[in-house]
Amino acid sequence: MLLESIRTVTDLRRIDPRELPLLAEEIREYIVDVVSANGGHLASSLGVVELTIALHRVFKTPADKIIWDVGHQSYAHKILTGRREEFRTLRQFRGLSGFPKRNESPFDAFNTGHSSTSLSLALGEAVGRDLKGEKYKVVAVIGDGSLTGGMAFEALNQIGHLKNDLIIILNDNEHSISKNIGAFPAYLLRMITGSLYNRLRKRSYEIIKKIPKFGGRMYDFFYKMEAGLKGILLPGHFFEQLGIRYFGPVDGHDIALLENVLKRLRGINSGPKILHVITRKGKGYRPAENDPAVFHGIGPFNRETGQQISGYRLSYSELIGKTLAEISRKDKKVIAITAAMKLGTGLYEFEKKSASRFFDVGIAEQHAVTFAAALASKGFKPFVSIYSTFLQRAVDQIIHDVALMNLPVKILVDRAGIVGSDGETHHGVFDIALLKSVPNLMILAPSGGAELRDMIHFAVRYNEGPLAIRYPRGNSVDALALDRRPGEFSPGKIAVVKKGRDITVLALGDMVKTALELDELLSREGTSATVVNILSVKPLDVAGIEREVSRTGFFITIENGAVTGGVGELILASLQGDLRGKCLFLAGFPDSFVTQGGTGELFRLHGLDAESLAGRLQPALKSLKRHEKRKTTRRPPRR
Amino acid sequence: MLLESIRTVTDLRRIDPRELPLLAEEIREYIVDVVSANGGHLASSLGVVELTIALHRVFKTPADKIIWDVGHQSYAHKILTGRREEFRTLRQFRGLSGFPKRNESPFDAFNTGHSSTSLSLALGEAVGRDLKGEKYKVVAVIGDGSLTGGMAFEALNQIGHLKNDLIIILNDNEHSISKNIGAFPAYLLRMITGSLYNRLRKRSYEIIKKIPKFGGRMYDFFYKMEAGLKGILLPGHFFEQLGIRYFGPVDGHDIALLENVLKRLRGINSGPKILHVITRKGKGYRPAENDPAVFHGIGPFNRETGQQISGYRLSYSELIGKTLAEISRKDKKVIAITAAMKLGTGLYEFEKKSASRFFDVGIAEQHAVTFAAALASKGFKPFVSIYSTFLQRAVDQIIHDVALMNLPVKILVDRAGIVGSDGETHHGVFDIALLKSVPNLMILAPSGGAELRDMIHFAVRYNEGPLAIRYPRGNSVDALALDRRPGEFSPGKIAVVKKGRDITVLALGDMVKTALELDELLSREGTSATVVNILSVKPLDVAGIEREVSRTGFFITIENGAVTGGVGELILASLQGDLRGKCLFLAGFPDSFVTQGGTGELFRLHGLDAESLAGRLQPALKSLKRHEKRKTTRRPPRR
Repeated sequence: MLLESIRTVTDLRRIDPRELPLLAEEIREYIVDVVSANGGHLASSLGVVELTIALHRVFKTPADKIIWDVGHQSYAHKILTGRREEFRTLRQFRGLSGFPKRNESPFDAFNTGHSSTSLSLALGEAVGRDLKGEKYKVVAVIGDGSLTGGMAFEALNQIGHLKNDLIIILNDNEHSISKNIGAFPAYLLRMITGSLYNRLRKRSYEIIKKIPKFGGRMYDFFYKMEAGLKGILLPGHFFEQLGIRYFGPVDGHDIALLENVLKRLRGINSGPKILHVITRKGKGYRPAENDPAVFHGIGPFNRETGQQISGYRLSYSELIGKTLAEISRKDKKVIAITAAMKLGTGLYEFEKKSASRFFDVGIAEQHAVTFAAALASKGFKPFVSIYSTFLQRAVDQIIHDVALMNLPVKILVDRAGIVGSDGETHHGVFDIALLKSVPNLMILAPSGGAELRDMIHFAVRYNEGPLAIRYPRGNSVDALALDRRPGEFSPGKIAVVKKGRDITVLALGDMVKTALELDELLSREGTSATVVNILSVKPLDVAGIEREVSRTGFFITIENGAVTGGVGELILASLQGDLRGKCLFLAGFPDSFVTQGGTGELFRLHGLDAESLAGRLQPALKSLKRHEKRKTTRRPPRR
Repeated sequence: MLLESIRTVTDLRRIDPRELPLLAEEIREYIVDVVSANGGHLASSLGVVELTIALHRVFKTPADKIIWDVGHQSYAHKILTGRREEFRTLRQFRGLSGFPKRNESPFDAFNTGHSSTSLSLALGEAVGRDLKGEKYKVVAVIGDGSLTGGMAFEALNQIGHLKNDLIIILNDNEHSISKNIGAFPAYLLRMITGSLYNRLRKRSYEIIKKIPKFGGRMYDFFYKMEAGLKGILLPGHFFEQLGIRYFGPVDGHDIALLENVLKRLRGINSGPKILHVITRKGKGYRPAENDPAVFHGIGPFNRETGQQISGYRLSYSELIGKTLAEISRKDKKVIAITAAMKLGTGLYEFEKKSASRFFDVGIAEQHAVTFAAALASKGFKPFVSIYSTFLQRAVDQIIHDVALMNLPVKILVDRAGIVGSDGETHHGVFDIALLKSVPNLMILAPSGGAELRDMIHFAVRYNEGPLAIRYPRGNSVDALALDRRPGEFSPGKIAVVKKGRDITVLALGDMVKTALELDELLSREGTSATVVNILSVKPLDVAGIEREVSRTGFFITIENGAVTGGVGELILASLQGDLRGKCLFLAGFPDSFVTQGGTGELFRLHGLDAESLAGRLQPALKSLKRHEKRKTTRRPPRR
């Protein structure tokens, strides 16, 4: 195997160019091997194998910086930069991350995971380099999807203004290599990137500028004319308008061509440049080529057939998708909005049933929420489904455009809580902290599929203000929930799931299940717990909680989210003063970023599984028993 | 006076066009009158007087919707839409808002205050209209500054894609009316907006499209050629590339021309259109024309001289600006970044002293933070100064691009707490709730200028991770702080400002002053308070707080921010269980949006001034005294 001879980029740079296609082939095989076993982001990583090879051969990494936008396409990069063997542990607990990580390798310039950050990072890197007078190249690789994220545009705007030397690779994988990439554009491209043309061009502009009186206006005119002509002949005018020189498009699977073009770009030592590269998602693995959306992020699958090996019946997202699709056929006011996550959020079914009321806004969470606000103001019932971690992008819009006008936008906070193998950048642990201080916003969290469905039906009826429903990345929803007649749901009411005597366990969302397991463990040692399903973070059922807590005396809270700023804090702050003293602890994820791993492992690691919680309760329960004994000897026993 | 004859838009539409310039003049006089007395956003409102008149004459408002981006330019709009007399109460408590407000008038389509939301709102409005089959026009008015905000681009991207009928007015006030707006462009403009041209154009494209085989490609070619030619002759190619038809530029102070063009645009009933209008900020009031940045948002001023009537010596922002500028001359690693708020954040002095390390990124808070992250990774010390309310736009970037990599970005949270007359959209009450759950992030809050200066010096030295310093919109900083030698500052330590016996008042930032006033009031009735300056929200000095609270028994917390998710909650959650029961209340702004008004009025309204707090403490203190009395009779008195 050729790949076995490559430990790092120095080996890669020594390979005979004629062998590179074979190497690309081997890397693909290896990626499909590992991802079929571990799950991961397959389609995008397969699409950039040749580009990754070319980049590391042309640029002097790690001195030159490659900044991968999102970072889910960095598998080949990891394999070629000293992590070939560790790649087998991809996305596992204590294994290799599925995203670039600075502490993993000096080749990983920045940690990423969310979209559209690479251009801001590249500009910062380039400005810092230039301030320090250092010499190296900065390359950002950004997909056409990520480019729709507003912050990428904010960065382009400053990149075109500041004019620092940097290279943007636009990895365009929406368009196949079509006819318009023919002989003439290729000729133009060679001309544009050729150093003779660039020298001539630069010289001409310098001469024009020096012409007395008219130089400035002539420069403007010729620049616009050049740009205008390119706009007719090439699709890059958009970038030229922003002051960024455009090159391309080129075939992103032709390593020799890529190396050639990249070398020329590397030689242009001034200003921002963008190279438009056309790649194919899932390239080289037929099932992924045919269905790149499914193979975007995927669990373990059979590599022969491409069939997913999945234990689950129906995810929360699918349950919502089906429920909303079904409702939308009758209620023409219901609208569904996704930010480039049609599959992940389960809304594909909605699109099929009510296409005119389905909107995929692209990677644009800010716009998604404000767009929904305007629709709500027109009497529609917009459901905006966004993963908890990406909703962090739309906090201001929820406050300023939704809550302030009290518009009935329904925010579906998908993948709330830890998500597992995607790790730090993708866990949805901050949504409660970010949303709970927003006035007018109702926040709900179901403990299971049937409740979630009831909440969706409630949300359709509720038009007095905005609401958010948070639910985890789910694989264990009872499919029967779909057939069941939706039940009533009233916000601001806890549900007492199980009555007990000694302690109240206030649990939110999927932690109700954990609370019941905890009760089971406690009961073996003679302790009896009341288990409360909080259901409604806002409005909070303070009276109900006070009633239950007063009955048992002590209480704990459990949530699948950051404990700082979480529902536990809110409960503590809401209770009457003396009841606050009855809190043993607030359980949730601690004030640090949660690593990757199986969710079971992560709950255990942070003391949030039933066993750990029982252990944490031991000292308190012992002293509680001593205390109770003393009390019983002193006073008549409680009812 | 002509203006007196105008109660609402129907009167406006009846006026002889020849009288309109006079009307514009009168409106300007009136705006300058009121703003010189009340303070407000002067320059942008003066810039759009003619545009406002033309819009309301051409469009059938309020059935047609005008959506003002940001909304600070809506003064003429308010005066002409039934609020002429109320305008005298502009920005006062219970008076007219300085921004559009739905509950003020049906002419105000949406509440706004933050930048770059109008295009998302306009698209939502237009999509909703079309889904309902309604017929009216949607017009968004957005400044060239707001257009750099990423979410505006997110919206443009979908506007160009969906193609709903809407009109965007690009209010370009950066560029004066320069030579390139001459006879030829004006001719082109008439041609482009002329209905004959449009009919011909539409017909031609229809014919081309129908040509068998080549139609599609020819359509593409001609469209690109038309766009390419316009790109040479006109600067609007950028928008054409996004699928939005571009018209202009036109002189935004020529009412007749504006009306003419707007009428033609109104007649084009399909697709998104953008009209580029050139206006001058501060138009018609010489001091504002000469210094539009100063007259952007301004306090009361002398209308003859343009001199501000200001009681304050040195604002927090200016203190920071001067301190950082001074440091930056010695420490070449210090960088200052603002998002289009050079004056407001006090950083103009930094720019003067260290221009190469000063960056104004435009209205682009997301990019500002991530750009800073990359600079921090290169060993620089970037200070990003953003108003608390606008920092809501950069929450994800703080989490994902700064805190996750633990990069030492220094976030200056300016105008934290209530800001007064700008009201709901501008109060900075959510920053603690949004930031406190972010791992690795230190959060500090000074109680005055000297402490703020010490914290800045500390921030320059501290490079172990990110930090945020929150400070209010300030008008009472001791200018002497600037001359004082900076003192030491250690995070994670409270300062006991005053020792007392009966109760501990834990106060954050500017509320320390209130706490001391409260102590003064309490002492008159024989109660003695310990006043603690919290200083450091994270890390929190839990041991110090426990020590003080244990000593006095009872405690309250006071903060200038939302109580839900605030520092009070964090303290409560951090204390040992039994001490939690000692909390009488957490004081802060309640779970609703805070209205406009003087800050003194607003503190009183929400029970956060010393008198109100003393009142809220009365019942508790009474029972405390009874309790103490009983205790003293039973046990020996405390030390």
